[in-house]
Amino acid sequence: MPIPAANLYPPFNITRLSHVEYGVTDLAASRAFYVDILGLQVTHEDQSRVYLRAMEERGHHCIILRQSDTAGVSCLGFKLFDTPELDKAAAFFEGKGLPVEWIERPFMGPSFRTRDPWGVPLEFYVKMDRLPPIHQQYRLYNGVKPLRIDHFNMFSANVDEAIAFYGEMGFRVTEYTEDDESGRVWAAWMHRKGGVHDVAFTNGTGPRLHHTAFWVPTPLNIIDLLDLMSTTGYVANIERGPGRHGISNAFFLYVRDPDGHRIEIYCSDYQTCDADLEPIKWSLTDPQRQTLWGEPAPRSWFEEGSLFDGAEIRESDLKAQPIIAP
Amino acid sequence: MPIPAANLYPPFNITRLSHVEYGVTDLAASRAFYVDILGLQVTHEDQSRVYLRAMEERGHHCIILRQSDTAGVSCLGFKLFDTPELDKAAAFFEGKGLPVEWIERPFMGPSFRTRDPWGVPLEFYVKMDRLPPIHQQYRLYNGVKPLRIDHFNMFSANVDEAIAFYGEMGFRVTEYTEDDESGRVWAAWMHRKGGVHDVAFTNGTGPRLHHTAFWVPTPLNIIDLLDLMSTTGYVANIERGPGRHGISNAFFLYVRDPDGHRIEIYCSDYQTCDADLEPIKWSLTDPQRQTLWGEPAPRSWFEEGSLFDGAEIRESDLKAQPIIAP
Amino acid sequence: MPIPAANLYPPFNITRLSHVEYGVTDLAASRAFYVDILGLQVTHEDQSRVYLRAMEERGHHCIILRQSDTAGVSCLGFKLFDTPELDKAAAFFEGKGLPVEWIERPFMGPSFRTRDPWGVPLEFYVKMDRLPPIHQQYRLYNGVKPLRIDHFNMFSANVDEAIAFYGEMGFRVTEYTEDDESGRVWAAWMHRKGGVHDVAFTNGTGPRLHHTAFWVPTPLNIIDLLDLMSTTGYVANIERGPGRHGISNAFFLYVRDPDGHRIEIYCSDYQTCDADLEPIKWSLTDPQRQTLWGEPAPRSWFEEGSLFDGAEIRESDLKAQPIIAP
Amino acid sequence: MPIPAANLYPPFNITRLSHVEYGVTDLAASRAFYVDILGLQVTHEDQSRVYLRAMEERGHHCIILRQSDTAGVSCLGFKLFDTPELDKAAAFFEGKGLPVEWIERPFMGPSFRTRDPWGVPLEFYVKMDRLPPIHQQYRLYNGVKPLRIDHFNMFSANVDEAIAFYGEMGFRVTEYTEDDESGRVWAAWMHRKGGVHDVAFTNGTGPRLHHTAFWVPTPLNIIDLLDLMSTTGYVANIERGPGRHGISNAFFLYVRDPDGHRIEIYCSDYQTCDADLEPIKWSLTDPQRQTLWGEPAPRSWFEEGSLFDGAEIRESDLKAQPIIAP
Ligand SMILES: [Ca+2]
Ligand SMILES: [Fe+2]
Ligand SMILES: [Fe+2]
Ligand SMILES: [Fe+2]
Ligand SMILES: [Fe+2]
Repeated sequence: MPIPAANLYPPFNITRLSHVEYGVTDLAASRAFYVDILGLQVTHEDQSRVYLRAMEERGHHCIILRQSDTAGVSCLGFKLFDTPELDKAAAFFEGKGLPVEWIERPFMGPSFRTRDPWGVPLEFYVKMDRLPPIHQQYRLYNGVKPLRIDHFNMFSANVDEAIAFYGEMGFRVTEYTEDDESGRVWAAWMHRKGGVHDVAFTNGTGPRLHHTAFWVPTPLNIIDLLDLMSTTGYVANIERGPGRHGISNAFFLYVRDPDGHRIEIYCSDYQTCDADLEPIKWSLTDPQRQTLWGEPAPRSWFEEGSLFDGAEIRESDLKAQPIIAP
Repeated sequence: MPIPAANLYPPFNITRLSHVEYGVTDLAASRAFYVDILGLQVTHEDQSRVYLRAMEERGHHCIILRQSDTAGVSCLGFKLFDTPELDKAAAFFEGKGLPVEWIERPFMGPSFRTRDPWGVPLEFYVKMDRLPPIHQQYRLYNGVKPLRIDHFNMFSANVDEAIAFYGEMGFRVTEYTEDDESGRVWAAWMHRKGGVHDVAFTNGTGPRLHHTAFWVPTPLNIIDLLDLMSTTGYVANIERGPGRHGISNAFFLYVRDPDGHRIEIYCSDYQTCDADLEPIKWSLTDPQRQTLWGEPAPRSWFEEGSLFDGAEIRESDLKAQPIIAP
Repeated sequence: MPIPAANLYPPFNITRLSHVEYGVTDLAASRAFYVDILGLQVTHEDQSRVYLRAMEERGHHCIILRQSDTAGVSCLGFKLFDTPELDKAAAFFEGKGLPVEWIERPFMGPSFRTRDPWGVPLEFYVKMDRLPPIHQQYRLYNGVKPLRIDHFNMFSANVDEAIAFYGEMGFRVTEYTEDDESGRVWAAWMHRKGGVHDVAFTNGTGPRLHHTAFWVPTPLNIIDLLDLMSTTGYVANIERGPGRHGISNAFFLYVRDPDGHRIEIYCSDYQTCDADLEPIKWSLTDPQRQTLWGEPAPRSWFEEGSLFDGAEIRESDLKAQPIIAP
Repeated sequence: MPIPAANLYPPFNITRLSHVEYGVTDLAASRAFYVDILGLQVTHEDQSRVYLRAMEERGHHCIILRQSDTAGVSCLGFKLFDTPELDKAAAFFEGKGLPVEWIERPFMGPSFRTRDPWGVPLEFYVKMDRLPPIHQQYRLYNGVKPLRIDHFNMFSANVDEAIAFYGEMGFRVTEYTEDDESGRVWAAWMHRKGGVHDVAFTNGTGPRLHHTAFWVPTPLNIIDLLDLMSTTGYVANIERGPGRHGISNAFFLYVRDPDGHRIEIYCSDYQTCDADLEPIKWSLTDPQRQTLWGEPAPRSWFEEGSLFDGAEIRESDLKAQPIIAP
């Protein structure tokens, strides 16, 4: 099953991924992790929620931490290009028989909540409160110096179907992994904003959120984070890396927050805005696919993920195995 | 005169700046500079021309060096999103009474040449030969490790008019400098591809090309280039920097090629794809505007530029003076 | 007048430069600069003094800031190898007819204060309180992440005589600048600890302290400091750089503290422990001597320095002029 | 068994480690690895040997590659401070009943070959041909941009005895690992030149050479090397890293040459010249000892090493096990 052609004329115009809401079981502990270790900036907080933005973002938030009895993911947020897109987007989901619920969200204009066909809770909006720039307030930079949210990566029980659906919405594949035996797609990276991806899908029990990624200036910031986590009680939260991905060519580190939500720190992928960009194909058996330097990912990386609130999970029927560290 | 509102629905869809053709008076000397010092990759060359691409580009070329009796700039190239845009673009220029000439260019599909109202030679196309990726062939990285062409900066005798025209084409202002006294715009940065700019305009005798910029991975690559140029006979070609721009927040260096064409090496600006991104305004008298660290640019930087073939230049009527190094 | 041969068998064994005491006119302002901006760690403070160390130092302090009516430098401190060296050192100075005063200093064992023949106040000791390592407490790293004191640079009214005297004490010349016309030494860099220098001498009205330098991990930390100073009210305290020195090959930045005391941030010079290391000679007229990249130093850099308490200054009789920025 | 006190008055004065001679089974393949991948500079070569230096070294060579039927290590070289030290050093070894053979070596002055009590072949000299500096010839920098040889690390069947012997020669312990159960030293790092070590000893079947290390400017050069090796056919030669050592705090990578000789790329340890520097003690069971970030070393790293020519190996009687990757 080949990669479908890019849909250059999608039914509505998504600008980029925007934000995620995590349910966390100890808000103070999560705040400490995201603020004191990662270096995200608090833009609002109350008893039950902490809103955060990264250093070059002017939208009000890219993460919401919400106190909850159980860890989970409430929604993945996407910003639409302009006001007319909102109704077009709602119509698209309604046309698919998917639920569309108009919601009031603090710091955001009109928005609706829906789900993709596998139950992933999605949120679409055009306007979010805009804040003054802080990217030149260098005193505020802390931790890994996160600049912006970069992408979501999800476990999917059927990646071929996921890329068909997200492709219809205008996400374009930049790189993908094929299972040589079945010819099916094992993982795919899809973008809207001109980087390697806004969303990615990995074969596995799904839907679950594999990770949210933040863009940082250089690999040295990732080394700084490793040094910091290692000497402030977070050494066990380092899961994988640092390394360079074969896919995306990005420099990466994966860490786990206090609830196990996985955060990727990411930099130096490449520009993908050309409409005729050719997707790069990798074989699942290529040992440099995951890490250009040859180091396999640990088992946890392939098996653990965050549950989406209200979404039922199922095992993937594609049983092809990636290379896993012993 | 305020910045005009962004045109979110331009008459045709430009994806990004794409390429520039320089007339150079000693092709071998220019090739040495761009290939051996900057590290661009030759994709084709013959007696009269050298075609170059940067490390993450898959389009055939981002610079053409053409042997010429006089130094100059033959055209600035822009890539359109999809085939239908080509006719729409041509119609736009024809509708303005501007010349549209359909041309055959090696390595490119259908293209036309036109001029902006001040005579800047522009070239539009959809398809250029696509080459295999080399961004993971690390043995090829050399010089400053240029990743991609980033932007053009032009002297304009009337920046307000320039941003009105380019704004109509869908370029959106991210930052600008105002002359406090006259209230006129002294310089502006405008983008299509989601970075701080694809094109910028600076008040001065124009139209002339101020510089072409290349994106590199980190500030350390710029330091490497300085060390290399300083010890290979190019110390006099270093014009300004390294430094951090106030405007764009990018880390920069300006160098001059053997004909004096100015090349900027540039990294670490920020993402601008939000349609509601608020332009940042700077005062011409702010000493941190040019260089966040306070160092003014030298006189040559404000006065010297490359002539566009066939364009007549005139002095700007806005005489406001920037801060110039003694 | 050639560089004298290295004295491999000096009368006493100096391990390295160790510390400096600055008289400062506003202790709180100076503390803010050294602690909040540069990132030095306070090891002790009271009403009149702040003691600081850098991140990899285990000696109690490398700088003392002392509240004073006038800005000045009370002493330059040097650490001797072992206890017997202390008496040998005292005997050396007494043998030269120079004053030797045994002093009690907080946090230090037996020490004496003396002066070099031009009045520079020097302090020698063997033992200073040793503190627990903090180089792996990454949460404490701040500002430019200073790792250790690296060197002192002094204006000298007669550099030939200065290098003869310091050479007798076992400082070995690594690089020097000659005035081609007179054949005299215009500046020299001399080491004990195996880097390019512990002390340097520059021709000029002296003796005055030109600067104290701190070693940092990489050039990127210097860029971080520039960004921080530029956005916290210290942009006017940036004097020169960043750049790479021709001499020493180090990457540098010069900043001024609130009293004008000059601090160099410095990294990436080279190892010099070989006894047969050949000094590298530079011409005063070489434009790459000061900055490999060709940028001259500003006038202030050649003319301004800190007075040593109790030392009389005189003009140099060597009038050769370096290259000064316009 | 505690660490013995530093011997501040050794019988002869070693300046630093200097060079190593490797027997290699395919000289062309080894040359390609050390020159084209690591970036060492050839200073002499003939049919049977390639002499190499790093970028800031002025001594003729720090590695000799010698064509051989079997892979091995012919000698570890050390530079003495001054001519009189040569006879003192020879007398020291003769006094221990160890062999002293005066040898003629190309590019070196008077030298002798000896062995430590466990058979490690050592070479001492004062003068080696000095070459013009190349550290500012930036065009020559390649690969990982190696600046200088930094240290040797050896497997030792009795680390307590090794540090007693090398300590007597004036090597001073900076950090060490203790086996909590037996109280014996499991590994130790010892220096002469003012860094964390010139030599280190690790418990294991010995004597064998564990690795030779080269100093590079920054962690980014190590990332560059990983990218280069991964895309030029050397991915399988990457053994461990990148990471930060707990011990020494250095950033590291271990790679294997075509014969399996292990090379460490190393940067950013700390200054150790103080005679009263306190050794830092680590527990063998501390998971951050090897890698501050918690990643254990692979089994090969603990078990494989290079044989010294003519030295018999024996198993260590200390069976304490480090943490090994699964
Ligand atoms: Ca690993
Ligand atoms: Fe990711
Ligand atoms: Fe620019
Ligand atoms: Fe200095
Ligand atoms: Fe090592």
